[in-house]
Amino acid sequence: MQSAPTIDLNADLGESYGNWRIGDDAGMLSVVTSANIACGFHAGDPLTLARACALAAERGVTIGAQVGYNHLPGFGRWRIDMPTPELTADVIYQIGALDGLARVAGTRVAYVKPHGALYNTAAVDERQAQAVVDAVAAYDSSLPILGLPDSVLLRCAEAAGLRTIREAFADRAYRRTGRLVARHKPGAFITDDDAVAARVVRLVREGVVTTRTGREVAIEADSVCLHSDTPGAVDKAYAVRTALENAGVVLAPVVPPPALG
Amino acid sequence: MQSAPTIDLNADLGESYGNWRIGDDAGMLSVVTSANIACGFHAGDPLTLARACALAAERGVTIGAQVGYNHLPGFGRWRIDMPTPELTADVIYQIGALDGLARVAGTRVAYVKPHGALYNTAAVDERQAQAVVDAVAAYDSSLPILGLPDSVLLRCAEAAGLRTIREAFADRAYRRTGRLVARHKPGAFITDDDAVAARVVRLVREGVVTTRTGREVAIEADSVCLHSDTPGAVDKAYAVRTALENAGVVLAPVVPPPALG
Amino acid sequence: MQSAPTIDLNADLGESYGNWRIGDDAGMLSVVTSANIACGFHAGDPLTLARACALAAERGVTIGAQVGYNHLPGFGRWRIDMPTPELTADVIYQIGALDGLARVAGTRVAYVKPHGALYNTAAVDERQAQAVVDAVAAYDSSLPILGLPDSVLLRCAEAAGLRTIREAFADRAYRRTGRLVARHKPGAFITDDDAVAARVVRLVREGVVTTRTGREVAIEADSVCLHSDTPGAVDKAYAVRTALENAGVVLAPVVPPPALG
Amino acid sequence: MQSAPTIDLNADLGESYGNWRIGDDAGMLSVVTSANIACGFHAGDPLTLARACALAAERGVTIGAQVGYNHLPGFGRWRIDMPTPELTADVIYQIGALDGLARVAGTRVAYVKPHGALYNTAAVDERQAQAVVDAVAAYDSSLPILGLPDSVLLRCAEAAGLRTIREAFADRAYRRTGRLVARHKPGAFITDDDAVAARVVRLVREGVVTTRTGREVAIEADSVCLHSDTPGAVDKAYAVRTALENAGVVLAPVVPPPALG
Repeated sequence: MQSAPTIDLNADLGESYGNWRIGDDAGMLSVVTSANIACGFHAGDPLTLARACALAAERGVTIGAQVGYNHLPGFGRWRIDMPTPELTADVIYQIGALDGLARVAGTRVAYVKPHGALYNTAAVDERQAQAVVDAVAAYDSSLPILGLPDSVLLRCAEAAGLRTIREAFADRAYRRTGRLVARHKPGAFITDDDAVAARVVRLVREGVVTTRTGREVAIEADSVCLHSDTPGAVDKAYAVRTALENAGVVLAPVVPPPALG
Repeated sequence: MQSAPTIDLNADLGESYGNWRIGDDAGMLSVVTSANIACGFHAGDPLTLARACALAAERGVTIGAQVGYNHLPGFGRWRIDMPTPELTADVIYQIGALDGLARVAGTRVAYVKPHGALYNTAAVDERQAQAVVDAVAAYDSSLPILGLPDSVLLRCAEAAGLRTIREAFADRAYRRTGRLVARHKPGAFITDDDAVAARVVRLVREGVVTTRTGREVAIEADSVCLHSDTPGAVDKAYAVRTALENAGVVLAPVVPPPALG
Repeated sequence: MQSAPTIDLNADLGESYGNWRIGDDAGMLSVVTSANIACGFHAGDPLTLARACALAAERGVTIGAQVGYNHLPGFGRWRIDMPTPELTADVIYQIGALDGLARVAGTRVAYVKPHGALYNTAAVDERQAQAVVDAVAAYDSSLPILGLPDSVLLRCAEAAGLRTIREAFADRAYRRTGRLVARHKPGAFITDDDAVAARVVRLVREGVVTTRTGREVAIEADSVCLHSDTPGAVDKAYAVRTALENAGVVLAPVVPPPALG
Repeated sequence: MQSAPTIDLNADLGESYGNWRIGDDAGMLSVVTSANIACGFHAGDPLTLARACALAAERGVTIGAQVGYNHLPGFGRWRIDMPTPELTADVIYQIGALDGLARVAGTRVAYVKPHGALYNTAAVDERQAQAVVDAVAAYDSSLPILGLPDSVLLRCAEAAGLRTIREAFADRAYRRTGRLVARHKPGAFITDDDAVAARVVRLVREGVVTTRTGREVAIEADSVCLHSDTPGAVDKAYAVRTALENAGVVLAPVVPPPALG
């Protein structure tokens, strides 16, 4: 007897800041199995983070630390060429801060995902990738890093003995190389909810996505990223989840929510 | 046989920020037994904090989380009338962040001391005091709070079942009520190193300080605060330490540096 | 022949920050005659401010500098007990920054309105009121200050020889003293659009508002504040504007939009 | 009769922030003829800037706006890959803010110099250079830009019809190409005060500097940059000024301090 295919759904949450609200944390936490919660550097005031952690814990959603550049004006989306000792300390600080809030909520940070420009930079830049890996290894070497398959970040993580979680994107077009179509290119995003859901089902069940030119490309992923800050994000996420469930896919976090020791 | 009198010496450290340097962390860490290390909200970039934690751990100095208002422009010295849920979350975030850096250094945060205007406000304002206490109790109810004897903060802490550490000030003049002479009043600060040292010795051995008008007032203190950011701060601190040692006083932190479990 | 009654409508704009959007600047700028544009300290990144200035200039809406405490986490809504030299410098800095963006848009800052907790504090606290007045007088003593009638702020402004603009609130309940019902009290806000519009018409044409207990209270106002960040804010604002126009009231800014000299 | 050689001496000032002090603004303002005053984004709280402007005005030193990335943690020394509309708005905002403080001091901002990583990036990166130039041209097209000779920044400025001020460095080694030896290379900095002074005199009088290998290289400069935040900075600056005066060089700003119109 074959076991049912299983997938983790993740989304970026906790990105409001003070009076500025973004996304629907409660709505998304009823869909995803893993929550990449911001850590206050690119977004997320402490009370927003505390509430996101409490709600995630209540719903059995695993908490990941979504670490980013210390830069509210750019929402962490602008690459910063910072020295690596500072970056490593920044990442440890952020994981610790979110872990403190997670502990108060009765759980713990269970993985780390870089955000925005740090995600993109660490995917290709050895120095920043290593700085992130050093931080995670120093803080808790049992924490996996979630990132792009075959990225410099995940290779550095593996070399350091860390677990990795390979991520695919529900609504992004892929090239035949398995890389993403750049955001500004035509067709970079799949906008139809049913099409997105069907792609994710196929990705999980068959391990392939279809490129814009009709080729099939193999993608190995442990987790699928759902957008959380676009209009209708919760509905889109729910459509993906329902399609997966209807297709017999089991939804489960890669790392189960830890209980406090 | 009577045991030797014992006292803890504490100072505010880790208050540099990026390119801006303040204080001599390494110098002070060779004198004090407890380090109130900033947590990034009023001062202290993560790399500065990481280095202060590493050095404190290396020297066997106990680390306390010096939590403050989230406000670099005022260095946390301006009272902010913030709502208490936000303040509680801010304090948990800061303790967690510093605790993460302390764990990487092989130790843990062992107590909490509010900084600057938060220290002064929580000494008299029930709402902010309770918000700080709630944060500490939620994060780790075994952590003591360091503050002013008989303050609203320490009374709230006791009511919540938290341990308290009562603090005296080496170079501040006291009123006959046991309260401090306000900073802007003449004679508020004792500037002569020998006089400061002699006062601290008497405070520790006899439990009294002399007011400006010559009266003796009883002060119960578990820890003595030494300034760290004035010119000659390390020399002054060293003078106090030497005078205490010469007077047969044992210098020891109230909470020994925790090892990682 | 009697001249038609005239009123200015103002609203807080430019309060988005980077990736965080709040309010509908373009929508409100088609209704109001004066725009209190944020200055980057409590809200408003420079590009948001530049765009708000450009749109205001294009529509002939007068630009005011909405100066606030330097504190994004609290959106300037938490009182900060800061020293007055720092506050004066902060206000000059903010006016200058917005004035630079306004000049690039072909106009100039034409008045100053404190925001949030600074508005409330300067209404009652002589020191902070004077600090704001000192800043405006130093920057350009021809700039009026917009604030609460009979407030400490406007009295300080008058004493310094500055012009003042007295503000009423479209949707706030008033006490028989002419003061506002505190925000947290029941009935503090009038929520029905037609009721709000009718109150503003009566306020402008007859100089009175009705309290919750049915008494009439005289209110002298040069400008009426419309909320900009609540759901349906533009529709509400438009309802007020239409009711005023239907009642023969002329809508015009207190200070016409300045051309560049 | 030949006119005496003339040179401008500039330095970065106003870089303290709240409780953090850096450099000796008053000392440097008795030596330099042009002050690149920070604008609050990489350094410089408004009161520090106000005081620097007042002192510069009092001493007849010309004020330039030292604009930088909006990033206190990196002191503006880390390159940020930000979109150009945001960068242009940030630069206008900063010039306007400092110009407001300069007007209050009775003068005006008279030129613009990018700081730190923005200086270096705009020297080679067309997009960021153009964004800075667009800001200056929009704010006041009579303001010159101070930068590296032959840099992308100065070429963009010239193409936009802006005046430029070419800068040499008193204590930096030059390559035979006229470029600076990179900071991390051995011999990048000339540390001996007399050697620095002699180099500057020769640079001004003869238009040449000697490379590390003994070659002479022609350098055309309108202004010489003196460091302000190193130990002994004022003494070094004074040594350069004295040597120039003794050599018959006239010290004068490129742009005289403007009076208010």
